[in-house]
Amino acid sequence: PHQGDYDKDKRLRKKQSSILRSSPPMPARSILARTYYNVETHPPESLDWLNVLVAQTVSQFREDARSNNNILHTLDKILNGDSLPSFLDTVHVTELDIGEEFPIFSNCKVFPCEDDPGRLEARIEVDLADSITLGIDTRLLLNYPTPLLAILPVSLSVSIVRFSGQLTMSLKTTPPSSNSDRKTSLTFSFAPDYRLEFSIRSLVGSRSRLQNLPKISQLVESQIRKWFVERCVQPRFQEIQLASIWPRRKNTREAFSSRNN
Amino acid sequence: PHQGDYDKDKRLRKKQSSILRSSPPMPARSILARTYYNVETHPPESLDWLNVLVAQTVSQFREDARSNNNILHTLDKILNGDSLPSFLDTVHVTELDIGEEFPIFSNCKVFPCEDDPGRLEARIEVDLADSITLGIDTRLLLNYPTPLLAILPVSLSVSIVRFSGQLTMSLKTTPPSSNSDRKTSLTFSFAPDYRLEFSIRSLVGSRSRLQNLPKISQLVESQIRKWFVERCVQPRFQEIQLASIWPRRKNTREAFSSRNN
Repeated sequence: PHQGDYDKDKRLRKKQSSILRSSPPMPARSILARTYYNVETHPPESLDWLNVLVAQTVSQFREDARSNNNILHTLDKILNGDSLPSFLDTVHVTELDIGEEFPIFSNCKVFPCEDDPGRLEARIEVDLADSITLGIDTRLLLNYPTPLLAILPVSLSVSIVRFSGQLTMSLKTTPPSSNSDRKTSLTFSFAPDYRLEFSIRSLVGSRSRLQNLPKISQLVESQIRKWFVERCVQPRFQEIQLASIWPRRKNTREAFSSRNN
Repeated sequence: PHQGDYDKDKRLRKKQSSILRSSPPMPARSILARTYYNVETHPPESLDWLNVLVAQTVSQFREDARSNNNILHTLDKILNGDSLPSFLDTVHVTELDIGEEFPIFSNCKVFPCEDDPGRLEARIEVDLADSITLGIDTRLLLNYPTPLLAILPVSLSVSIVRFSGQLTMSLKTTPPSSNSDRKTSLTFSFAPDYRLEFSIRSLVGSRSRLQNLPKISQLVESQIRKWFVERCVQPRFQEIQLASIWPRRKNTREAFSSRNN
């Protein structure tokens, strides 16, 4: 029965341009027109619904961090990892506060991308006022000129108390390669005028003669800023590949059974 | 120098509950209060910015489908796959229109989940008026009582011209297992009163005596509805695992270099 395979191939090759009806490439202007968005006049939109969904997720993450102690063990592993310099003794976590407030997103607006006006992106204000604290105890080991010449106890507590900034977000597709389909990514970055406020306390010395050392505070603060700037402050941005949302059997769940789990 | 590991372990175990400061589990009520969302009085929010970003992605997908013919070859493979019944001859794609309009999301509101009032979800109206068409030619092979007793040409064209419905969306975290961290998923489903309108044309018979066969149209329509209902109409829903958005070096890009690529 399956005769005519050759015919089919020929037909497919010949007609593929005529079979697939489609309009010419659509410029940003047309996309905006068809979605009824005027970049000049559209008022900023609120994102209160998103704040609720994000807060719920953050809240579940915190509950989880409290119920098992994964986060403490992870921190302990990082702080005492291979990269610990030889002049530092074991680091003890003395305080950890993962906060209780949630980020607030607001004033979302679409703009043409400055670098590439053909691409459209959303700019969103983000604000977080919370107290996220990590406190550690350790000891500075002065090994020069002789080993363990002196041991200096250090107690350090770092709190992030405020973050605000303008988040730029867009959806981007990566061109398909021979072995993969086109993938969609979420990209995001923060404008360079972000605001990140710390409260840092550093005490050095023996229990009876503790002294605050501002130099240590500055060092810690600049390290955290550097980490942030190098990853997601413009011109740097994060590109997170998104899973396909095409409905699939393997991603299908049923409300009733999931409720009973 | 790294003495005191035993001390540290003991200390970590003993103090972990006191080290990790955190508030008790937060009910939906508190999450709503801290995000300033009153489910009784909050007006529905617009999602015009999201419409633009989604439209841009859909537009790129269409451009890609046109520039290479992946989509035609994929369709051809599916339509002529192993599951083709023996009474069908090779299926030729005669028409393919992937549309030129974009989905419009609007009126987003947060509600407590009906099945589980402790969980909050967003409900969003979705509307798509477009013409997404697949046209095929094939032949029915009547093999009974003798092989190839008759050959009946069939020409079928299916268009989806309208979809509207209420989308329910939420973020969900899956509890961590011993070998993986807590993962966040996006879940979505459509309310059962969705509206999906078709335009189906089916012609059966020899070129000179073509007849419209409504039964074939009904069969095709019910198969498409079944596919949709079984995957994402309540109580079924789709659960798509999200990548972590925690800023990482491997996901870092720079705007300037990406522009020059």
